[in-house]
Amino acid sequence: MNFEDKLIMMPGPVPVAPRILRAMSKPMINHRGDEFAEIYDDCCNILKDVFNTQNDISVISGSGSAGMEAAIGCTTNNNDNVITIENGKFGERFKLIADRYGNALPVESEWGEPIDLDKVENLLAEGANSVAMVHNETSAGVLNPAKEVGKLAKKYDALFIMDGITSIGGDEVKVDDWGVDIAIAGSQKCIGAPPGMSMVSISDRAYEAMENVDNKPYYLDLEAYKESLDKDKTQTPYTPAVPLFYGLQESLHIVNEEGIDNRINRHRTYSKAVRNAMDAIGLEMYPTLDENTQYSNTVSAMSAPEGVSGEDIKKDMLKRGIVIVGGQERLKDKIFRIGNMGNLTHRDILITIQELETILHKRGIISEVGAGINAANDILDSL
Amino acid sequence: MNFEDKLIMMPGPVPVAPRILRAMSKPMINHRGDEFAEIYDDCCNILKDVFNTQNDISVISGSGSAGMEAAIGCTTNNNDNVITIENGKFGERFKLIADRYGNALPVESEWGEPIDLDKVENLLAEGANSVAMVHNETSAGVLNPAKEVGKLAKKYDALFIMDGITSIGGDEVKVDDWGVDIAIAGSQKCIGAPPGMSMVSISDRAYEAMENVDNKPYYLDLEAYKESLDKDKTQTPYTPAVPLFYGLQESLHIVNEEGIDNRINRHRTYSKAVRNAMDAIGLEMYPTLDENTQYSNTVSAMSAPEGVSGEDIKKDMLKRGIVIVGGQERLKDKIFRIGNMGNLTHRDILITIQELETILHKRGIISEVGAGINAANDILDSL
Repeated sequence: MNFEDKLIMMPGPVPVAPRILRAMSKPMINHRGDEFAEIYDDCCNILKDVFNTQNDISVISGSGSAGMEAAIGCTTNNNDNVITIENGKFGERFKLIADRYGNALPVESEWGEPIDLDKVENLLAEGANSVAMVHNETSAGVLNPAKEVGKLAKKYDALFIMDGITSIGGDEVKVDDWGVDIAIAGSQKCIGAPPGMSMVSISDRAYEAMENVDNKPYYLDLEAYKESLDKDKTQTPYTPAVPLFYGLQESLHIVNEEGIDNRINRHRTYSKAVRNAMDAIGLEMYPTLDENTQYSNTVSAMSAPEGVSGEDIKKDMLKRGIVIVGGQERLKDKIFRIGNMGNLTHRDILITIQELETILHKRGIISEVGAGINAANDILDSL
Repeated sequence: MNFEDKLIMMPGPVPVAPRILRAMSKPMINHRGDEFAEIYDDCCNILKDVFNTQNDISVISGSGSAGMEAAIGCTTNNNDNVITIENGKFGERFKLIADRYGNALPVESEWGEPIDLDKVENLLAEGANSVAMVHNETSAGVLNPAKEVGKLAKKYDALFIMDGITSIGGDEVKVDDWGVDIAIAGSQKCIGAPPGMSMVSISDRAYEAMENVDNKPYYLDLEAYKESLDKDKTQTPYTPAVPLFYGLQESLHIVNEEGIDNRINRHRTYSKAVRNAMDAIGLEMYPTLDENTQYSNTVSAMSAPEGVSGEDIKKDMLKRGIVIVGGQERLKDKIFRIGNMGNLTHRDILITIQELETILHKRGIISEVGAGINAANDILDSL
């Protein structure tokens, strides 16, 4: 089996461009030396533009979940209350983490349904220390109202922790304007790098909160990261995954070359093309929208049509060499999802739609092939 | 500056062989699919041989410190006592971690001096829950008595947590015979892989202890790793650093091809060659030995000679393209260290000795060059 042949259209990991793969095969360096400091500085400078922030950025050698734990674990004492907004799998992860360090106050909606901002405000008014939200909830294909939650957090002087793992680098994120105290990005998502790293921005307010926390994690201690950032040579507190830094740096150079605004526009156009195609094919989007909640611009979640499960669609596509995903946990079988993150091309979007139409046609769900391709092209041609 | 030209002779990271670097540049795969499960299984099977264990092995996408925290954090409740054996920087790290999760009971020696086994036994007799020790303490160049500590831990029914980060894959480690409940290896050390991963073996006794611990870390929760190992497809609980797994797998294939016994013999021979050279040059080894404590077989720590600091020697060597290290923290300036970990050759050892002689000669510390090279060759020729 030759896995080099598959097209990955998942909500991360994403295909990694050859020049990024090659960057990872550079020889090792001493991570306490000047060369590493230059790479780390370069990454952080570009990431500040991508995050739209003046805050410190630390890069953790660990997945997005490590970044989520760093954010909660370093700012939450045993008796602190953390509002965890949950309308999908990753919102639930914030709850699991918050309960390890303090008390989670969940604000739950069904997966893919709008969050209850009034309930968030009530809990803030009662004195919660922080509010944690997933900006782009890939498990359900929705984009949650970060700006609005940021305003509420500010009003009640609570910290705002935002999982931007699958939005940062592919959709608009304004960390400073929105008042995000800790924002987390993932390497293997819109930034287009390999998996294994999370990038975290930390506000001064967040650092201040950390001073009073006495049960912080060790490997994920953001104060230790800050101390290493502030040395005469920029470092990490523990040994960094050097090849992943090489890959991240090259990925960020690609982001710079495309331009972050163009990149966001491309992601939005691709997801719109997918949605337009689904509409033309006769498939329904899974999420429920309201005035604050939008479809994700980096992953599309569709309800599986009558007579076929999301898993079936995923398996049919996999046989044809395209990796999409079904639903997770409670949405298993009910939905399927197509990611459009990172360094993809028009061709990647179009062949995915084409193959989807083909498999649905073979299963007798649609009578002919082509409507989706045309609808996708209508949008893509605008780019 | 072309960093591709430097020879890294550090106690990790180590030079990474070209075939391992190339392995990392394979395209990404879905880490929830069959291909990843095969890679992970393959790594764990080889690692069991390297660790000499039948225990589960979990691979963490994070540095050796992450593995140390996973071991302590998952087995230590707030009121639990952890004996932390300290005769160097990494032993002190165990204390810092243990104090975040429970209470550290330090058994301290000066860096590089033998540990007090009687004191360890007394604290075990008083009911400590676990004992944590660094097997190969790179900060001081000593090999601590793992077998003896394992016996004591067993006698008093305490867990034995061993940092084997810089011994496993390069020196003899017998996890099951020695009764090590959690052993930790690092990727960028004797195994010869890139930095960014730790590999952890976990005994049934350790898993049992975890059942009663209520403040475990999240990203480093070894029970979550076990659950993912036990799925129908071997997985990791959080997104793994896929390129590093590619690199680890290739590194372990190289370990297999050399044969672990040959590999250990090569490491021992290289360190002996370095020590013999130092003796011929007239430099003193830093550690103090006793009947239980030996020189490290993977890194040599030498006292800096009169009139020159360890940092000076490091800098002189760096100018000549060889990366060795000075001392850390309290040993800064007092010592310098030469690593001999991973996939090195005779030539790497010999050029390091040669350049060291040259710089000492230029500084007027030795009158002629060549004694070290000859002494190293006397040992290397035996291999």
